[in-house]
Amino acid sequence: MNDKIYSLVIVGYGGMGSQHGRKLENVSRIKVTGVFDIKEARQEAARAQGYKIYEDYQAVLDDPSVDIVLIATPNDSHHPITIQALNAGKHVICEKPAMMNSQEVEEVMSASAQTGNVFMVHQNRRWDEDYLAIKKLVDENVLGEVFHVESRVHGSRGIPGDWRHDLNRGGGMLLDWGVHLFDRLLLLFPQKVTSVYAKLSYILGHEVDDGIKVFLTFEGGRTALVEVGTTNFIALPLWYVTGLNGTAMIEDWDMNGKVATWDQADTKDAVPIVAGAGLTKTMAPRSESTVTETPVPRIECDVRDFYYNFVDTIEGTADRIVKNEEVLRIMTLMEAVFESDRTGQVVHLNL
Amino acid sequence: MNDKIYSLVIVGYGGMGSQHGRKLENVSRIKVTGVFDIKEARQEAARAQGYKIYEDYQAVLDDPSVDIVLIATPNDSHHPITIQALNAGKHVICEKPAMMNSQEVEEVMSASAQTGNVFMVHQNRRWDEDYLAIKKLVDENVLGEVFHVESRVHGSRGIPGDWRHDLNRGGGMLLDWGVHLFDRLLLLFPQKVTSVYAKLSYILGHEVDDGIKVFLTFEGGRTALVEVGTTNFIALPLWYVTGLNGTAMIEDWDMNGKVATWDQADTKDAVPIVAGAGLTKTMAPRSESTVTETPVPRIECDVRDFYYNFVDTIEGTADRIVKNEEVLRIMTLMEAVFESDRTGQVVHLNL
Repeated sequence: MNDKIYSLVIVGYGGMGSQHGRKLENVSRIKVTGVFDIKEARQEAARAQGYKIYEDYQAVLDDPSVDIVLIATPNDSHHPITIQALNAGKHVICEKPAMMNSQEVEEVMSASAQTGNVFMVHQNRRWDEDYLAIKKLVDENVLGEVFHVESRVHGSRGIPGDWRHDLNRGGGMLLDWGVHLFDRLLLLFPQKVTSVYAKLSYILGHEVDDGIKVFLTFEGGRTALVEVGTTNFIALPLWYVTGLNGTAMIEDWDMNGKVATWDQADTKDAVPIVAGAGLTKTMAPRSESTVTETPVPRIECDVRDFYYNFVDTIEGTADRIVKNEEVLRIMTLMEAVFESDRTGQVVHLNL
Repeated sequence: MNDKIYSLVIVGYGGMGSQHGRKLENVSRIKVTGVFDIKEARQEAARAQGYKIYEDYQAVLDDPSVDIVLIATPNDSHHPITIQALNAGKHVICEKPAMMNSQEVEEVMSASAQTGNVFMVHQNRRWDEDYLAIKKLVDENVLGEVFHVESRVHGSRGIPGDWRHDLNRGGGMLLDWGVHLFDRLLLLFPQKVTSVYAKLSYILGHEVDDGIKVFLTFEGGRTALVEVGTTNFIALPLWYVTGLNGTAMIEDWDMNGKVATWDQADTKDAVPIVAGAGLTKTMAPRSESTVTETPVPRIECDVRDFYYNFVDTIEGTADRIVKNEEVLRIMTLMEAVFESDRTGQVVHLNL
């Protein structure tokens, strides 16, 4: 058994960079040895953790003791930093969104192939319990044939006050949160995406989008709504999934929600109910005996699996969890989202 | 003061027709005197109410004592029945959807103008308390500038088992429920509709749609999502409305829901929260002191106002509540919805 401990340097020691540092304390195969960050306060914070502080990025690349570069800088810098690291013989863990566009992803994939060094994107929200619970319900066919999924995050604080406001740095909610929601959606629905209709919002007056609403269709007819909002004072559910025999809803990260499944043919015709100023038979609830409500399934998972899988990928002992082809597909999809919003048209694809 | 009591004959004494009969018992200016229905069981039921039973529709038209014809037959028959009634000197109350297409509405509007007889569509869901509460919140600017509205009804019983399954009779959920939701949406947002993207569902295998998802944009940038579902075992809220300073949600016809408004600038930067497998600052909740949650406002209204307004319209003493131009606009919008679904494209309009 290989017991090499890989030395990792964090480039960009902000919120995400320092969070990686904390998580890696409990990952036996990787040791954080250093940090490079241009901000003095962050250098201070890193020094307090006992990390070596690099003067410039070239010094990281030149250090033969460094095996892995972890990139947690603003989005526009991921591409050059990654390319340089791969060419300097380092493996790369990169924060999401991987790159600014699909061409950059392709260039990085080439560099990774040419150098033999591993490039993997930290799509950490594949380990969210809410997503894993929905994936389990879909995979186990608990709702019958699923035909529609809604995946959303709603906040009311606008965009955080830093580079995420800047278009040139890769700001905006599509790149920030959309990338997660699309990543997971494409794992839930393996079919090809055939069309995208998107409306980005610019309510807060920034140059970047402060929210997205994207309607997708898949080969075979499944549909999805993906939504990110930063001006929503009441949050709609994280997940809403409908199948022929049931519906699942997860309201929040505390896993509030329910699964409603239909047990048997409800042979009695509906009795109209009073609804507002009218009667409705169509919208009358089913009798309780035919629908069972259960809590959302709880899933155990370990976010450290990402790092262990990265080591296994370096050593060639396991299939990688986050594939670069998946990252390329998400980036291509997000380009279609931008295009649909810009043109006001549906973008048809075979993705 | 005019105290003429108008004689009304119900044509089509099914669920809606008989409901009109019951409501009109408490409307002093209109008396239901007769019924025409081709089904014997319904003739029996009408006879038991003391109504005169007409042998055929021509007999209704020929009866000089009849002032008003109320049409509650399947949708495809509204047009010929209405034209005949107007030409026979009768005023007409017509169930929704008024007609099968906008051309039929235009023909009826012409006939009404030529004969001087009143034609009014029973858009009864303008009196729904949930709609009236949302209208009040929007009109009184409680949420600040509103930029997005979602209006939906979710059931899980499929389409009721009668002519509503038939395409040629005007079945399907767009015509049945969509017509209400669009009617109210266009009253909430007075701006012109500039684009429509629609996806109808045919999950249950009927020749008519069993659900709709329609995304609209309005001049000035407001957006709306209108949704009808008949395969939803968990219902999403009837209303979800977001403005710059707040959000309102009404969950169901019992008026469960809340209004969340933002009182003051929340000057403190957000503290990241743990959300699933990651941290988020963007989606961290606002501190409680800056957001106030209140119940949904309750509205008193009287569904009989429709009938009294119909009488006032005949007598020329009030502005009509349901205008035929509005009905024409909804029908034109629904044609765009069908077109968008059929072509898979966005339909651009200036409606």
